[in-house]
Amino acid sequence: MRASSSDLAARRRQTLGPTYQNFYDQPLHLVRGEGVRLWDADGREYLDCYNNVVSVGHCHPRVVDALCRQAATLNTHTRYLHASVVELGEMLVARLPAGIDTCVFTCTGSEANDLAVQIARAVTGNRGVVVSEASYHGVTELTRTLSTDSYPAARRPDWLAVIEPPNRYRGPAGYDDPEAATRYLELARDALDALDARGHRPAALLIDLVWDSNGPLVAPGGYVNALAAEVRRRGGLVIADEVQSGYCRSGANWWGSTNYALEPDILTCGKPMGAGHPLALMATRRDIAEAYAERCHYFNTFGGNPVSAEVGKAVIDVIDDEGLLDNARETGAYFESLLRELAARHATIGDVQGCGLFWGLDLVVDRDARTPVTREQMRRLCSLIVAEGVVTGHSGRYGQILKLRPPLVFARADAERAVAAIDAALARFEVEPDG
Amino acid sequence: MRASSSDLAARRRQTLGPTYQNFYDQPLHLVRGEGVRLWDADGREYLDCYNNVVSVGHCHPRVVDALCRQAATLNTHTRYLHASVVELGEMLVARLPAGIDTCVFTCTGSEANDLAVQIARAVTGNRGVVVSEASYHGVTELTRTLSTDSYPAARRPDWLAVIEPPNRYRGPAGYDDPEAATRYLELARDALDALDARGHRPAALLIDLVWDSNGPLVAPGGYVNALAAEVRRRGGLVIADEVQSGYCRSGANWWGSTNYALEPDILTCGKPMGAGHPLALMATRRDIAEAYAERCHYFNTFGGNPVSAEVGKAVIDVIDDEGLLDNARETGAYFESLLRELAARHATIGDVQGCGLFWGLDLVVDRDARTPVTREQMRRLCSLIVAEGVVTGHSGRYGQILKLRPPLVFARADAERAVAAIDAALARFEVEPDG
Repeated sequence: MRASSSDLAARRRQTLGPTYQNFYDQPLHLVRGEGVRLWDADGREYLDCYNNVVSVGHCHPRVVDALCRQAATLNTHTRYLHASVVELGEMLVARLPAGIDTCVFTCTGSEANDLAVQIARAVTGNRGVVVSEASYHGVTELTRTLSTDSYPAARRPDWLAVIEPPNRYRGPAGYDDPEAATRYLELARDALDALDARGHRPAALLIDLVWDSNGPLVAPGGYVNALAAEVRRRGGLVIADEVQSGYCRSGANWWGSTNYALEPDILTCGKPMGAGHPLALMATRRDIAEAYAERCHYFNTFGGNPVSAEVGKAVIDVIDDEGLLDNARETGAYFESLLRELAARHATIGDVQGCGLFWGLDLVVDRDARTPVTREQMRRLCSLIVAEGVVTGHSGRYGQILKLRPPLVFARADAERAVAAIDAALARFEVEPDG
Repeated sequence: MRASSSDLAARRRQTLGPTYQNFYDQPLHLVRGEGVRLWDADGREYLDCYNNVVSVGHCHPRVVDALCRQAATLNTHTRYLHASVVELGEMLVARLPAGIDTCVFTCTGSEANDLAVQIARAVTGNRGVVVSEASYHGVTELTRTLSTDSYPAARRPDWLAVIEPPNRYRGPAGYDDPEAATRYLELARDALDALDARGHRPAALLIDLVWDSNGPLVAPGGYVNALAAEVRRRGGLVIADEVQSGYCRSGANWWGSTNYALEPDILTCGKPMGAGHPLALMATRRDIAEAYAERCHYFNTFGGNPVSAEVGKAVIDVIDDEGLLDNARETGAYFESLLRELAARHATIGDVQGCGLFWGLDLVVDRDARTPVTREQMRRLCSLIVAEGVVTGHSGRYGQILKLRPPLVFARADAERAVAAIDAALARFEVEPDG
């Protein structure tokens, strides 16, 4: 870190305190972005292979133009009529899974998930919520409680049912198990039975359709809909948390739900919707919206304001006009092929998981025993990759997943550059994993 | 409503559903704003006497410039170093009440209050929270539960202690009661004793220092600090919810806390910070931030991003450079004098409450009995005032408070125009209050 960055880091600790954590051993001091490229304070250029929030690329001129144009014209709230929020809602409804016809805008995915669960509880009269092991759904009190990766299992409330995510590499049913869907479903049934035994019926299944904090994972065929049916049979709604899986990320469809032919009762999204601007969504069926409105009204001061809505419209227009769903599929397939070649050369790569432009490398110190690398080792590896000029991150239940989730404008040459950087970093890492 | 607005209203109902409520009988279709002025789709101009979110005025060019400049340069998150968020934090710490030295940024006041209460509970080990009757603190599950104006009293959890706000017009101790502070404090002690009897100690007092949803109110001298001391004596922290009372609104100080010489343990703010952009704050003492960080880390994807931070800096610069604290005091005092003259002419005005640029007229159908007007009558009155070209709103425990809370750039001529419009509307309203 150069002197000014080091000084800035000290001022940051002084003013923002201990909860503000940096990525990487040497924090990255970024000052400019464009497309998939980032520049630090020393003028060094990086390839962004991590940030899905800037879904259509850093500082996309059409998004910036929409933001500036509306910000200079009017920014109020949804207690007044304004065309922008209605137009954004219409654009979304045209793309949302069948049956989802009503949009409510919030500022963050946390707020969207929090509202979704409030609605599910109010409408079903039940209190239980079903989430995955090592899930992440937000940082409000409610959504943090629903994030089993965020606190010790001993503190889980009795209304929480926690199920095994369909991890085919580390879970109980592998890639070659033809009964994998059934086995994961049985585990879910056990958790639901236990919830029932604790005196709670499910208000909702809250499911991230790419199981980001575990993967990215791809579920065995039939599993998602069978799980949804099981929860519905017991009186719960199905909430698809599409913060990670939505907005064309998977390359196959706009939404992860559609990949599994799932028609959720409620769908939430956030990060990619505003390309960096705080914009998020809770969308549902009209009958659910009406049943909730009988009990309660929801108003979010900033949610769906004219500026946010114009930004949201611009992001969708860019995705369409630049063919970013096709790009996620086509560049994603090429990226996968390069990653699988890479895995063949590095025993540290235990598994290649994902879809579209969201890939994870499950890294191991022992390929046979599948022993995951440690968080500290992953932190070092990510720092080595940054040193090669590529920005990545890591997640996973043990922090062992190298997370590759670039802006959707990622090109074939970017995929090649990313893989070359990971290749070089792994070569150094494998010699001396603990630095 | 002209045809296109009527069509838009129908499309809005179709896409956004029943939770989206409009102000006024004939929804206002606004398309442009500048300073304290708004224009609708028909080109009609209005004076904004309601919106505190656009604290420095609609579309302030310096705020728009800061937004556009940063949005075109880089928008990431706080896992990378960036100067903007540190600079905003430093600017805030220089203005925050004594002892508050650590800033955490969120997107909304709901998120800030939700986090504040999570922290208070984690740090104290207690679960109880003390709020006012008819309070409003947000829309997450936790903050909605803390908003006693949002749901029936029968559903309140046993860890909630609800105290009487210091309403000198409608509460048990009036303006002429020299023991008012003591009387409100005794009521609070009763509520705290009852909380104790239900087996809960307080984690926090969550207090809006202008009691917006009840007022605006001004508490009797000594009350706020005596209440804070009582809660602290029982092991709780003091959270000042400054979404309404902060950012120079009161005309006396940057924060409502300072008006009462209160040094809160945690301070939250939201709406006015970004002049429309989603930016909010949870600020606390370093010892509390460190105690919380031992248990938990907080990361908000959009919170404190470079664009939000640059907007936040620009808002503070405008407040300073345009002398808006002085303006809130001076124009506010003139506004008050006009409102008191108005009250002398209209028996419908039972009380004039507030401070700085936040005034409330408590409206009554019978001045002696202090019988409040109904919500429906207030809705009609606000529509009459809009017909006179002035945008207002209403709040209060019975919906009976005409709420006057303009952008801080409000001038003497604006105050005159607002009062003339209310005068004319009241004249029509008093003849036929139910339309």
